[in-house]
Amino acid sequence: MQARALQNKAAIAGIGCTEFSSNSGKSEYQLALEAAVAACEDAGISPHEIDCITLPAYQTETVDEGCLINGLGIENLSYLGTLGHGGGSACGVVGQAALAVSNGMAKYALCLRALNSRSEFRYGQYDKDREDEDLEAPAAGFYAFLHPFGFFTPAQWSAFWARRHMHQFGTTAEHFGAIAVAARKHAARNPKARFYERPITMEDYLNCRMVVDPVRLFDCCLETDGACAVIVTTAERARDLKHPPSYIRAMALGTGGRGMYPITAFNRERLTGMEETARMADFLFEMADLRREDIDVAELYDHFGPLVLLSIEDLGFCKPGEGGPFVEGGRIELGGELPINTHGGLVAEAYIHGFNHIVEGVRQTRGTSTAQVEDAQHVLVTSADGVPTSGLILSRST
Amino acid sequence: MQARALQNKAAIAGIGCTEFSSNSGKSEYQLALEAAVAACEDAGISPHEIDCITLPAYQTETVDEGCLINGLGIENLSYLGTLGHGGGSACGVVGQAALAVSNGMAKYALCLRALNSRSEFRYGQYDKDREDEDLEAPAAGFYAFLHPFGFFTPAQWSAFWARRHMHQFGTTAEHFGAIAVAARKHAARNPKARFYERPITMEDYLNCRMVVDPVRLFDCCLETDGACAVIVTTAERARDLKHPPSYIRAMALGTGGRGMYPITAFNRERLTGMEETARMADFLFEMADLRREDIDVAELYDHFGPLVLLSIEDLGFCKPGEGGPFVEGGRIELGGELPINTHGGLVAEAYIHGFNHIVEGVRQTRGTSTAQVEDAQHVLVTSADGVPTSGLILSRST
Repeated sequence: MQARALQNKAAIAGIGCTEFSSNSGKSEYQLALEAAVAACEDAGISPHEIDCITLPAYQTETVDEGCLINGLGIENLSYLGTLGHGGGSACGVVGQAALAVSNGMAKYALCLRALNSRSEFRYGQYDKDREDEDLEAPAAGFYAFLHPFGFFTPAQWSAFWARRHMHQFGTTAEHFGAIAVAARKHAARNPKARFYERPITMEDYLNCRMVVDPVRLFDCCLETDGACAVIVTTAERARDLKHPPSYIRAMALGTGGRGMYPITAFNRERLTGMEETARMADFLFEMADLRREDIDVAELYDHFGPLVLLSIEDLGFCKPGEGGPFVEGGRIELGGELPINTHGGLVAEAYIHGFNHIVEGVRQTRGTSTAQVEDAQHVLVTSADGVPTSGLILSRST
Repeated sequence: MQARALQNKAAIAGIGCTEFSSNSGKSEYQLALEAAVAACEDAGISPHEIDCITLPAYQTETVDEGCLINGLGIENLSYLGTLGHGGGSACGVVGQAALAVSNGMAKYALCLRALNSRSEFRYGQYDKDREDEDLEAPAAGFYAFLHPFGFFTPAQWSAFWARRHMHQFGTTAEHFGAIAVAARKHAARNPKARFYERPITMEDYLNCRMVVDPVRLFDCCLETDGACAVIVTTAERARDLKHPPSYIRAMALGTGGRGMYPITAFNRERLTGMEETARMADFLFEMADLRREDIDVAELYDHFGPLVLLSIEDLGFCKPGEGGPFVEGGRIELGGELPINTHGGLVAEAYIHGFNHIVEGVRQTRGTSTAQVEDAQHVLVTSADGVPTSGLILSRST
């Protein structure tokens, strides 16, 4: 397969994060620069050496390449790129960077996300004025089929998918609870996590507040101020830097048809899984030349816990409908067969739009996670699956 | 040089345009679909075969990948990407597509631009409300140093560069006029051009209305409704399609430092040329393994004619300050040493944000331009140089 052209050609050589908080007291610009400088230090390069920046585009970000050029003292970028649709694009922009450096378009690429999503712009809340403006674009016209019915937010949309899965396959609240309990267990070991040293039991989960039935409070991603950055370079250059390279074994993207935003694509035949995630995964594993059982640990985008259960199926770890039984019995916890979200994920570490999943993926291949999977060779990382989605397989060795 | 990895690996296999008008009577969405379908027909593929879309992001566009997926009946995109900063990114998104297909991420990539820039959103006009909103982002904060002085529009900013060049190097109105006269001469032969059969003389140029001294009416790009699209695939696949491939010999991008928007970066030492264009060009020619004199025809972004004179210098066709004498004596007209903008460019064919320059570049390598340069082997195409910029070298053979 020709896509193997990219296999192991590039690597993540540096990772950097700010503190994760509910009120940073800093601008998103300052958070971005802090994370970028930390990632450069981690890689052992000067910020002046950055000659490529690829960024996810959320339509809400305030930091662009120009800010970074000026703030980091970059002389020139010989490559730049963005990828729309927010949470689904974090792995994708790392892939863009991998394509750029492995084809000689640049040497050191910076990818990052910085946001004050608690103290400034809070997501997932219905803002009538903003949406009305969006409605002018044909891309957003589909909201006209949702908003008049009070069907406004991602938590509501996620609840539909979760409920349909329960209806069709007998999935239970305890199944969704297993995902939340695992995330909190991992976060409890992670000093950077918002829920450090605060694990929960299944009873805690079942008793927590219902947000949109069947989505409970502990299913929902946190609102966080913070930033994460990574440095991507060629595998060859990465081997000469400070830390062992986290090889980009494979990268893939997917959109599906009939609706750009699958989380609201209720016009599809199947409403218990997202076709783009399945297509992306097939492409990813073919490019990686790996089987699902070769994955040692998975960092899966978890804006809402129940969607992780669907992802597990779409990614091919079990058959459709079997996600519930799959997550039972500690299989997705540290020590289990497939530990998931070893940093705590968006629901228990921080909501950095999936960039923290990539950083944790690198920690796992380096062997430095606070919930380290022994001898982790291959780590699957995914970005949001309610929009055009993307994924990475990061590996300890080539 | 490693960047030669991409050399001739991909090609433009299809081109498509709508009618160019001052009032299309159609939505931008419809224009986009018309151009996309035309490009597919030109390539000899079905729109359903498109599996990659890369788009320039202008912050004003209303058509995104979702619209195109639904409108064209695409099942899934295995690659997508955008590139910010509008007019500077047209060549860049073709480059993104080239990277994607040549690394096996996708088979057929669609790149396009559709806009009703006359009948709907008109550019280059100062909209106080819109700019005030932009000022909230640090990227746009620099406007605070311009707007209080009434220094609002690209025409004004271009005038500063032109005047400085006249002051420092003795460049004259007749030099800028030579660029306008050449564009109108070429457009006069092009039935698609807004100024078809309407050439001008130097006298016409010197007598036309002054817009912002020294920028005259005939120096200014048109406001146009229309769309252009191209299909990018591997060189190998392109050879089996309907038309001779237009090989992507090289692609490059550049940003420079100290100000993301060089056209307003008046804090730089040199104010007679743009460093990002020079860096982009050096990268481009090194990747192409060609000399400047190997270029047979150039389609240079011409939002404002005088900036073309600066581009000619920055691109390395003559020394700094010698752009004036360079354009004299018909050198940049059909039959001259280096014909420029053989379609008429933005000032005389249409303002499709530089996408029409790419389409004309393909026509030149195919030998089908209405101002065809005999045996054109290598065509240089550039995107806007007042923002992060990009360029392509398209070739008739490998």
